[in-house]
Amino acid sequence: MSLIKYEENGKIGTITLDNDKQRNALSLELIRELDAKLTEIANERKINVVIIQAEGKVFSSGHNLREIDGAPVEDVANLFEECQALMEKIRNIPQVVISKVHAIATAAGAQLVAASDLAIASDNSLFATPGTLIGLFCHTPAVFVSRNLDRKKAAELLFTGDFITAEEAKIHGLINRVVPLEKLDEETEKFANSVARHSLAVLEAGKKQLYTQLQITNDFDALTYSSDVMVKNSQKPDAVEGIRAFLEKRPAEWSDR
Amino acid sequence: MSLIKYEENGKIGTITLDNDKQRNALSLELIRELDAKLTEIANERKINVVIIQAEGKVFSSGHNLREIDGAPVEDVANLFEECQALMEKIRNIPQVVISKVHAIATAAGAQLVAASDLAIASDNSLFATPGTLIGLFCHTPAVFVSRNLDRKKAAELLFTGDFITAEEAKIHGLINRVVPLEKLDEETEKFANSVARHSLAVLEAGKKQLYTQLQITNDFDALTYSSDVMVKNSQKPDAVEGIRAFLEKRPAEWSDR
Amino acid sequence: MSLIKYEENGKIGTITLDNDKQRNALSLELIRELDAKLTEIANERKINVVIIQAEGKVFSSGHNLREIDGAPVEDVANLFEECQALMEKIRNIPQVVISKVHAIATAAGAQLVAASDLAIASDNSLFATPGTLIGLFCHTPAVFVSRNLDRKKAAELLFTGDFITAEEAKIHGLINRVVPLEKLDEETEKFANSVARHSLAVLEAGKKQLYTQLQITNDFDALTYSSDVMVKNSQKPDAVEGIRAFLEKRPAEWSDR
Repeated sequence: MSLIKYEENGKIGTITLDNDKQRNALSLELIRELDAKLTEIANERKINVVIIQAEGKVFSSGHNLREIDGAPVEDVANLFEECQALMEKIRNIPQVVISKVHAIATAAGAQLVAASDLAIASDNSLFATPGTLIGLFCHTPAVFVSRNLDRKKAAELLFTGDFITAEEAKIHGLINRVVPLEKLDEETEKFANSVARHSLAVLEAGKKQLYTQLQITNDFDALTYSSDVMVKNSQKPDAVEGIRAFLEKRPAEWSDR
Repeated sequence: MSLIKYEENGKIGTITLDNDKQRNALSLELIRELDAKLTEIANERKINVVIIQAEGKVFSSGHNLREIDGAPVEDVANLFEECQALMEKIRNIPQVVISKVHAIATAAGAQLVAASDLAIASDNSLFATPGTLIGLFCHTPAVFVSRNLDRKKAAELLFTGDFITAEEAKIHGLINRVVPLEKLDEETEKFANSVARHSLAVLEAGKKQLYTQLQITNDFDALTYSSDVMVKNSQKPDAVEGIRAFLEKRPAEWSDR
Repeated sequence: MSLIKYEENGKIGTITLDNDKQRNALSLELIRELDAKLTEIANERKINVVIIQAEGKVFSSGHNLREIDGAPVEDVANLFEECQALMEKIRNIPQVVISKVHAIATAAGAQLVAASDLAIASDNSLFATPGTLIGLFCHTPAVFVSRNLDRKKAAELLFTGDFITAEEAKIHGLINRVVPLEKLDEETEKFANSVARHSLAVLEAGKKQLYTQLQITNDFDALTYSSDVMVKNSQKPDAVEGIRAFLEKRPAEWSDR
């Protein structure tokens, strides 16, 4: 039986973590199912936006500690390798990934939110990286948490292990939107549609370039690379169509090329 | 006829984008005029702060799409090269550059704000990087937008193409101040004066070192470089005068050296 | 007579800057005393959290300008070398360092706050890097200020020299908490305890890895390094105990290994 569910609606695909019993832990099995589904979505190129949501009491509680407790170190190493591969998959698919959080996202669950391109949460949501509480610092969640939130706030999450509210998470950069729980579905759909309406080719090129230039320390090296991408992409079918449509004051028709 | 106006008042120079008809688009002509004016200001060393403001319905709508639509790729490449040179000029002049935004700053217009040292905006201002809407991702604006705003907020601007308000822009780091439209002139003058009162030599040295150390990834490599700059600059005339004046409880007199 | 006081209470050590007459300036003597005390704390490994607070009118006014005014350049160079060594000491001790600010933290005093792992301040606190006012840009404070606050806000502090409030400092990332002055002691104790309750070995490993990965530009290089650390640390005594305790629903007992 699968630990995730999937459905598509127009240009939006929704993956639902569906393992309430284990608090949607990022178990090895769940990681593999998520990775396989994202690979399929990337290959099919039918949708533009992937929403990752969850059913049950929490969004995700992070790794399944039973897969670490007493396990051979090789197995632990493999677990973290596959988890890293999942984070890289999120980065490398052409689609924009939105985490949709309700209730609680902790440890690797918070990492999943941080590694997503965008995130929305209900106003009762809480976020934490509580590894210190169980004697194992959230070393891997720290990477994307500290690349989303400012340094002091990231340190606070990691050193205290305490929760921050959705509102704090928004102000400090972990998530984009906070909405009342009863509007979470509706507002996520609006948010997803604001991205899904664009050309997949344009989103793909933008996602690739946005993150690539972020890995270039020097501002103007990053700009030189980005100018080059911009010039090349200005010649692509959807740019030609989009600019022409704008100048002719008509809606553009995307070919996704 | 020029697309910009310029006036000086004490230590503050104000460049006004003056092409309402084209929504103050960063056309090749406007880019060249801006670049030439900034070069002149840098060479003259008469003022300490440059304000970039605009007249008309918007601050700036970004590139002139008519210069991209159907243009030979060499021309597009040249446009982006000259635009990058303008951004480097803003970085390399000794003066502190303040963008003063009213109404709307989009695409390369938002890039201009992000690439400025400081920014102030009227409370009715809106910011967007809407390239996705015309099939050409805001690849170049992404560079400074993602170096001003936190990662998730930058991604939101770039992937949705939607506007954010001045207040959001302030909280997430794109601008420094939001003021009522009727106070924009007065508050900008105050803000500019809080910088312009200092020695040009000190502002120049600070601007150079601030950005240089930001391009050094390692914290303590950046600090080693910065300590060295600080020691050297402690021996310069305006540091000697400034420290002495402080200890003698009298106003300093800057020689701009 | 010492310029600092020190006391320990359980797992928390509190260093008090005690030189009100010189506004708790980071004089060479104070820098050396702080460095020596932190070295001792690091070697003893008795406590988990160091609070740096101050007695007197302000938290710290930064460097003692009388040590720069008219001094031989070798002495100035030595001062900044020893100050940098102190910042590196804060980074390299196993304990988490919390700055507890009241009233005013300026220049190298603001640098001390920025270089700390965490910071809390009373709601009447003000922060500034006012070097421009004395003709010597806050080149060294700029390093950690610009690695805490977003780029525009850091530039504002550095170019204007003006104060920002504790609330602004919190929103933009310089400090974690703002509390009423009369609750500063109580809230700092709570904040410190939320960290001090953890294993010193876990805090040490976390602190080292958090900052190391921040110095790695590429996201996934940082994650590869961090995954490796996580796997290794999952085998350490306090991780084994912490995870087992969690699964057995009992409190963990830390061996600090």
